[in-house]
Amino acid sequence: MDVLEVPADRPRSWYLSLMAPNSKGPGNPWLDPSRLYCNHQALSDCIADILQPFQNESIDLVAGIDAMGFILGAAVATKLGKGFLAIRKAGHLCVSTWEQAYVDYSGHRKVMEVRQDVLRPGLRVLLVDQWIETGGTMKAAIALVEKFGAIVVGVAVVAIENTEGGRWIKKNYKCSHCIPEELQPQIDNKYLNSFKSFSNPSQ
Amino acid sequence: MDVLEVPADRPRSWYLSLMAPNSKGPGNPWLDPSRLYCNHQALSDCIADILQPFQNESIDLVAGIDAMGFILGAAVATKLGKGFLAIRKAGHLCVSTWEQAYVDYSGHRKVMEVRQDVLRPGLRVLLVDQWIETGGTMKAAIALVEKFGAIVVGVAVVAIENTEGGRWIKKNYKCSHCIPEELQPQIDNKYLNSFKSFSNPSQ
Repeated sequence: MDVLEVPADRPRSWYLSLMAPNSKGPGNPWLDPSRLYCNHQALSDCIADILQPFQNESIDLVAGIDAMGFILGAAVATKLGKGFLAIRKAGHLCVSTWEQAYVDYSGHRKVMEVRQDVLRPGLRVLLVDQWIETGGTMKAAIALVEKFGAIVVGVAVVAIENTEGGRWIKKNYKCSHCIPEELQPQIDNKYLNSFKSFSNPSQ
Repeated sequence: MDVLEVPADRPRSWYLSLMAPNSKGPGNPWLDPSRLYCNHQALSDCIADILQPFQNESIDLVAGIDAMGFILGAAVATKLGKGFLAIRKAGHLCVSTWEQAYVDYSGHRKVMEVRQDVLRPGLRVLLVDQWIETGGTMKAAIALVEKFGAIVVGVAVVAIENTEGGRWIKKNYKCSHCIPEELQPQIDNKYLNSFKSFSNPSQ
């Protein structure tokens, strides 16, 4: 399907088939979810789907994780009429920050940071990222939000893999994602799926 | 002003005073504009201001530049009901890309890339970033959009400095930014202003 086309019929999760398979070979992620953001209806439907479980929740602020979580996070914040807090890779912010070390999906030790003047006790924060693989990055973001008493209302992403970290996040926080149950095995068997398009049975 | 407070009176560009001054010393940017995104009314007013000059323009797609341009860009795309294209630092995308070399604000040679399956002749693209300093990054993004015939409708940012590159972009493209004329000297004299708060006479 052309990336900008809007189909007449839009079954549940139709937009997942817009995600692009790896065409560059080993060493690259197996899938590029960001292709779906290019389609205005896909972006809108994706946002509606990940917000659906939170429609009765009070949310004060949306926080997105550097860098791809900025896209979905800022889109979600705008849709909700809320502000957006950037949770950043260390070294970019020129203001006082709280820091949190973590190990990312590629096994590298990194540090994430957030400005100190926004998060406060009782502030209700929806955390947004593109994809949870090992969960290390999201767990660091959760720790930053909770460090001084702000509340993680939930976690909203395109997909969560059934890794140890992914399961821990799903067990401990309200999570929303866009992957129907019958498609989850494709997400979890990603290495088998490399170079193959993500197939969406609902199509 | 508290970062989350919404003043009863909101004069033009009121939200610029939310931008945070450098508190980390030399080697860091002089100002953090992203603080204003945390305030829902500031984000909303900022988006309205940078879109105002484009209200009679036809826009097919919003493109934002990695990483901070993703925030304002995705917010603008959502406000307009358009799709969002990520213009990325090289090495992140697992799909076929077009590349463009450039020299960034810090003088480093870098490469930016964009997926090949979205931009096409005649597609009208609004380019969004947080800040134009030397203009090198934005000029590379413009080159990527125009490479195969897509049209840059304009450039929307929080601020454009009066550098050689900034002036070239303003001369050759329709630009919108949030800085009133009387505050522009503070943007252009940023090194004098380091460690000082950005002052907004409209307050």
